[in-house]
Amino acid sequence: MNFVTLASLPPRNIFAGAPGRYAHTEKMTIGEVELAAGVVVPSHSHPHDQFSYVLAGRVEFTVGPETRVMETGACAVIPGGTPHGARALAACRLLDIFSPVREDYR
Amino acid sequence: MNFVTLASLPPRNIFAGAPGRYAHTEKMTIGEVELAAGVVVPSHSHPHDQFSYVLAGRVEFTVGPETRVMETGACAVIPGGTPHGARALAACRLLDIFSPVREDYR
Repeated sequence: MNFVTLASLPPRNIFAGAPGRYAHTEKMTIGEVELAAGVVVPSHSHPHDQFSYVLAGRVEFTVGPETRVMETGACAVIPGGTPHGARALAACRLLDIFSPVREDYR
Repeated sequence: MNFVTLASLPPRNIFAGAPGRYAHTEKMTIGEVELAAGVVVPSHSHPHDQFSYVLAGRVEFTVGPETRVMETGACAVIPGGTPHGARALAACRLLDIFSPVREDYR
């Protein structure tokens, strides 16, 4: 599969209220995740490095000890093992990318 | 650095006419790349896996033997070692993500 429109894939509900649509290479996973206003992704961590890029909307995002309000074009940089979480201040869409691949999201 | 706005970083001109602004984790590189209408990124390959996600605009993108016109929300999935190239049909912005990290883009 050389080309994909993530928004057209069936959703996975990794977190309640946060449907995500994922594709993979051997070494990475990319997903488009929707958060309705008010949805909270509780703090969690995983060994995978992660980027979370805001495609649209407004989200309060915590990485380790730091919390920021992120808008379109902002990117969170999350080293593996770092606790992180989010709260949607408005409906938003995030692009989440992980390495290594999220075998649990396949 | 837990948060970054890629668009505010100084550009690297990896390809002529295609300024890119990059950030890194230990395992991945993410970059926002601008292509003016008509810019061509010649076919090339690298051992890194890559996603190219269209943030805005319209680009003709080739991965291996397959060429597609991509618009906002489309994503190219490029396994390491696969030749790929692009031609901007309109001004566009791409999000390019690589793993392993692009040591040459640091």
